[in-house]
Amino acid sequence: MPGEFELIARHFARATPSAILGPGDDCALVAPSPGMELAITTDMLVEGTHFLPGTAPGQLGWKTLAVNLSDLAAMGATPKWVLLAGSLPDSDDAWIGAFAEGFFKCAKRYGADVIGGDTTRGPRNLCVTAIGELPAGAALRRDGARADDDIWISGQPGLAALGLAQLQGRTTLPEALARRCTMALQRPLPRVELGFRLRGLATAAIDVSDGLLADLGHILERSGLAANLNEGQFPLIPPGSEPKLAREAQLGGGDDYELCFTTPIPLRQQVVMLAAELDLPLWRIGYTVAASDERPAGDILLTDADGKPLPLPAKGFDHFG
Amino acid sequence: MPGEFELIARHFARATPSAILGPGDDCALVAPSPGMELAITTDMLVEGTHFLPGTAPGQLGWKTLAVNLSDLAAMGATPKWVLLAGSLPDSDDAWIGAFAEGFFKCAKRYGADVIGGDTTRGPRNLCVTAIGELPAGAALRRDGARADDDIWISGQPGLAALGLAQLQGRTTLPEALARRCTMALQRPLPRVELGFRLRGLATAAIDVSDGLLADLGHILERSGLAANLNEGQFPLIPPGSEPKLAREAQLGGGDDYELCFTTPIPLRQQVVMLAAELDLPLWRIGYTVAASDERPAGDILLTDADGKPLPLPAKGFDHFG
Repeated sequence: MPGEFELIARHFARATPSAILGPGDDCALVAPSPGMELAITTDMLVEGTHFLPGTAPGQLGWKTLAVNLSDLAAMGATPKWVLLAGSLPDSDDAWIGAFAEGFFKCAKRYGADVIGGDTTRGPRNLCVTAIGELPAGAALRRDGARADDDIWISGQPGLAALGLAQLQGRTTLPEALARRCTMALQRPLPRVELGFRLRGLATAAIDVSDGLLADLGHILERSGLAANLNEGQFPLIPPGSEPKLAREAQLGGGDDYELCFTTPIPLRQQVVMLAAELDLPLWRIGYTVAASDERPAGDILLTDADGKPLPLPAKGFDHFG
Repeated sequence: MPGEFELIARHFARATPSAILGPGDDCALVAPSPGMELAITTDMLVEGTHFLPGTAPGQLGWKTLAVNLSDLAAMGATPKWVLLAGSLPDSDDAWIGAFAEGFFKCAKRYGADVIGGDTTRGPRNLCVTAIGELPAGAALRRDGARADDDIWISGQPGLAALGLAQLQGRTTLPEALARRCTMALQRPLPRVELGFRLRGLATAAIDVSDGLLADLGHILERSGLAANLNEGQFPLIPPGSEPKLAREAQLGGGDDYELCFTTPIPLRQQVVMLAAELDLPLWRIGYTVAASDERPAGDILLTDADGKPLPLPAKGFDHFG
């Protein structure tokens, strides 16, 4: 059985052209570009909590990195450097090799170098730290939304939650939709280019990891605003899904890693053009309103297309809730 | 039971004066100092592998950060920013509070700001990423040692391994020594100031986490050298310990986080003066030699004070060995 250092060297030591020094020393060394700020995020994925036991290692490798790059995207940062720490129950070379392939495929796709890490024995747990660059002051923070901003969501939120329901036998989707939904769950696409392009457009942004309503709620609370959402402007429910489950997935399901963001009304046409340019649907689902005694910061009013209030489904996923 | 976000907010959201944006957004934002390079490291600590179940949370909080700051010290970097991801089996508020106290005590002691993190449910696992700054080109890498450099070790390596043996009932130390050894294990002091002061002096450095011989071996392999060590120049064995166990702990025990480093002979007196200034013993335990057919890179010859070869004890700790 190969030793720890040998495993690391074999699968994770690849060229790191953007770093001064990559894996293999006490630290990696990088030189940030002059005048740029760094956006830094860390996310831990635990077997049984964030992914099902038996998840294909290649998909898991991709997703482990993708969820971190999604946080960079939500700030508008360009991915640069990544570190991976992993606890594994055994030194299964085939598993580690497949995981590394998925991980590096994602790193290459989004232009990040894997500059360091740590490997240890224990229950399966993967922790990534991702670092991106962006011009000083350009970050898309959660606290920048203003009253009367448009609220947008990218792509097709809710597919990942439907995919999980399918895998857990809680629903039965048509075959093609089932494939699409499990792909959304297992191989999410972080909206890196969208985030990058939203610099200068969006007043606030967040990636939807806990569910659309919960994550929009974070923007609203941080920005001191409430929101009105119009279900008539939401993406359509995927044909062949159970409407109630699909709507709940759209509003409360996490793990899609779409971006929810706000923009000033005068920039609406630019967002529409950006959607066309990126070939990515951007749905204007509502608008922010000033908080008040009746509607405290974070309050969300959901109506149907005719303005009739609708009940809100359960909010996002809280690991300790 | 408080929710995840509430727990995080209560215990981990503190002032981060060195960051543009601290915890609570998709990413933290920092502005590196102009002209400085960044040293970045990540380390994962798993219950049962790196610390015993039931370890006091305050000590664990300190150690979790200290082992990462030790990696910065080994590069000669000044600690700046830290992220903490943790998986916990429950939301025990008292445990988390005590852990946070130990963690922040260490952060404050060494001048690092805790700028972000992640909390999730699962088997106990703590993963830190630490970022430090240093002038361009000043890093103490593993690959910079040259033939005929002096080899040094700081402090009293082996105490932590003796402390672990004591806790596991494998040895019985006198009371005062037992206290000192368990402190070395549970509350290690990263040699941050030593690392900082070794810039411009040391040709290579590493922190001893896997054992002195194993970690010196990494320097030698990276630098393409062999080494001669003289047991007569080693720190004395602590009085009251079993000599054989104590010597093995000194040569092969990890977890002390002392620094092992190499310096050119002409700088020897400066190292001696630095030891006095820092009030920290620095032991010149041997010297590097050019690798050869008989002595490949990484080869270590240990002799007694009279030059008689001694057998090497088992090498360091490999999690997958």
